[in-house]
Amino acid sequence: MFKKRENIVEIEEGSYLSPKFDNQGLIPVIAICAKNKEILMHGYMNEEALRLTIEKGEAHYWSRSKNKIWHKGETSGFVQKVKEIRIDDDQDALWISVDIGNGGSCHVGYRSCFYRSVPIKKILDEKKIKLEFKEKNKIFDPKKVYKNEPSPTKV
Amino acid sequence: MFKKRENIVEIEEGSYLSPKFDNQGLIPVIAICAKNKEILMHGYMNEEALRLTIEKGEAHYWSRSKNKIWHKGETSGFVQKVKEIRIDDDQDALWISVDIGNGGSCHVGYRSCFYRSVPIKKILDEKKIKLEFKEKNKIFDPKKVYKNEPSPTKV
Repeated sequence: MFKKRENIVEIEEGSYLSPKFDNQGLIPVIAICAKNKEILMHGYMNEEALRLTIEKGEAHYWSRSKNKIWHKGETSGFVQKVKEIRIDDDQDALWISVDIGNGGSCHVGYRSCFYRSVPIKKILDEKKIKLEFKEKNKIFDPKKVYKNEPSPTKV
Repeated sequence: MFKKRENIVEIEEGSYLSPKFDNQGLIPVIAICAKNKEILMHGYMNEEALRLTIEKGEAHYWSRSKNKIWHKGETSGFVQKVKEIRIDDDQDALWISVDIGNGGSCHVGYRSCFYRSVPIKKILDEKKIKLEFKEKNKIFDPKKVYKNEPSPTKV
């Protein structure tokens, strides 16, 4: 389905999609909110997930925790309607702009997965670096939405 | 420097930085423009690059093509001054908001690496999927800026 990667000029300056999947068959994907450009999540697609996303216009990822295609929203209902897809210079990363209505994209219950900030300072003399919560309130209760599903987070 | 990853609740809901580096010692990083939220690039940091970024307030990455720490802008002059760092729910992805002034972030010469869009349609019946250029003009001449350095893009 995708053009074979043959030379650098075609990959960087050409007009054909030639995505590079890593040695696990995955390409990283950034999802942003189509309304306000907020970064919602960072995930991965394999070739099939990318094809499904392009064809159906709804984000499909490869779930590394469940080891299967993951139609985002299949459990929570928070489907990501794709408004735009972009690929980068060397075609090894994607971003997608998505409409999630008033839903969330984070399994912990926040709208964005990136709800905590890391301090920037001159010297890190502490053993533990303290994060600051930038989103104060969850927009849904993950226990209700995901019921007894285990967290995808791996220690 | 970082808190040991011990349990899911602490990783997701806790206040300490416990980043997860993959089996190559890397964590993916999205860089956005602090002024307009445009996504500039997708890269990777190792532990040392993350420490340098936090301490110095300028983006440092791990260059997978050169296999070394990469102080972004060391050749081009387009240093990324870090305004904010965020980490996601399971702490295996970062975004940084950066000031690049009127510079670029893409080695091909565009302001953003994501200068091409992928069409969204119902059925992909073509063998080659055509990209659309969203940035029409380069903002710098990579031949002048990078001189004879080889492209980091790998086929």
